[in-house]
Amino acid sequence: MSIILYDIPSTSRGYSVSPNTWRIRYCLNIKGIPYTTEWVEFPDIVPLYKKLGVAPTAKKLDGSGPHPTLPMIYDPSTNTYIPDSLAIAEYLESQYPEAPQVFPHNTGGLIQAFSDMFLLRVVEARNLLTWNIFAKLNPASIGYYREVREKALGVKMEELVPDDQLVAELDRLKAILGKIDELYAKNGGKGPYIMGDVPSWADILVASVVVVFRVSYGDGSEIWKKIVSWNEGRWGILVDDMKRYE
Amino acid sequence: MSIILYDIPSTSRGYSVSPNTWRIRYCLNIKGIPYTTEWVEFPDIVPLYKKLGVAPTAKKLDGSGPHPTLPMIYDPSTNTYIPDSLAIAEYLESQYPEAPQVFPHNTGGLIQAFSDMFLLRVVEARNLLTWNIFAKLNPASIGYYREVREKALGVKMEELVPDDQLVAELDRLKAILGKIDELYAKNGGKGPYIMGDVPSWADILVASVVVVFRVSYGDGSEIWKKIVSWNEGRWGILVDDMKRYE
Repeated sequence: MSIILYDIPSTSRGYSVSPNTWRIRYCLNIKGIPYTTEWVEFPDIVPLYKKLGVAPTAKKLDGSGPHPTLPMIYDPSTNTYIPDSLAIAEYLESQYPEAPQVFPHNTGGLIQAFSDMFLLRVVEARNLLTWNIFAKLNPASIGYYREVREKALGVKMEELVPDDQLVAELDRLKAILGKIDELYAKNGGKGPYIMGDVPSWADILVASVVVVFRVSYGDGSEIWKKIVSWNEGRWGILVDDMKRYE
Repeated sequence: MSIILYDIPSTSRGYSVSPNTWRIRYCLNIKGIPYTTEWVEFPDIVPLYKKLGVAPTAKKLDGSGPHPTLPMIYDPSTNTYIPDSLAIAEYLESQYPEAPQVFPHNTGGLIQAFSDMFLLRVVEARNLLTWNIFAKLNPASIGYYREVREKALGVKMEELVPDDQLVAELDRLKAILGKIDELYAKNGGKGPYIMGDVPSWADILVASVVVVFRVSYGDGSEIWKKIVSWNEGRWGILVDDMKRYE
């Protein structure tokens, strides 16, 4: 029996539009650890935690919580459930030390600094990311997600990214990735990853945000063409290179 | 003829109290690159740039500039002057690729993320760091430094850290290092450095801020004893370990 990854389905069969669960999909595939996916609709997440008797540990963006979220994994070899993407990555890193590391050369602290900075900035593109998820949910999740997110954000889903705001929202994402590009540029052009030719948790965080645009809009869409044109194509190259880890 | 490091002297003969020049002293010693020090008093920095015909490149904390600062190095092998600590480190890294790297394993981008975060936080301890420098300057520098800094900060040197504020200022430094400790803790206890047993530019940045307290107050002082007691002794261990690179 292999590891189970609990993920959130979308209308693109076999693909999630949650950056958080994408992180662990990339992570497991980079490590080459076998797993199966269990798809869980949004309204079923809380009942799942209850059924399995798992205490949630993830925190909300505002620091409150803990609250039940996905991703979560179940590792039969230790009979444990682990929620929260960073905790899962750190668990896999120590539990499977022979597999490729996503914090290579003991970069856990440096990557945490990168992560703190990146996630703080990504909040600025929250409307767009939330809309991407909402627009691709299955009917079983739509009502629940709408209720929870509209309550949290204080705005109707349809008002998150009005048509005339899409360009401005994309510009916000472009500005965020532009700052990240300055860091990637320090790798001396030695590969698509921030450390050159070795993928790490830092790349996973970035690729997980970018890839959902491909899933949401399709790789022939104007939006995707725009994103892969930024920063001399860096983000398209990154996500393409990581395709083998999808 | 070896590399020249232009550094700022203090009343502790042979030791600087400038975190910025300490960075390059550590850097050159970690790399094992021979150099001699040329000590330059504060009022002599601008004339030095003029005499050598060097265009300043460093920016002030508020982003303005460029303005003439130390450290600067002269490398006779390429007949170039390089100002600005990060630019010097990156120059040495590419010019002497066989020497030990301070951005090992292509961590330039990750360390930049760490650096941005650390330097943004360290500003909160600026009063204390400025006072440390001022209190240890030679007579030739005191008047000049006072004039320039008092104009920039809008406060008399003696009011920077009044006696009854010293504890509060130290607490501020403690809080900053406490956040950094969370990142160091990710190294799995595999050494004194953020990446375990390999020193990097990230450690140089931190050690350069901490070591000036030892130089300023002495390693028998109450203040030094306090600092080395924080975070289970992490900062004393770091600076002690890096003594061989002083």
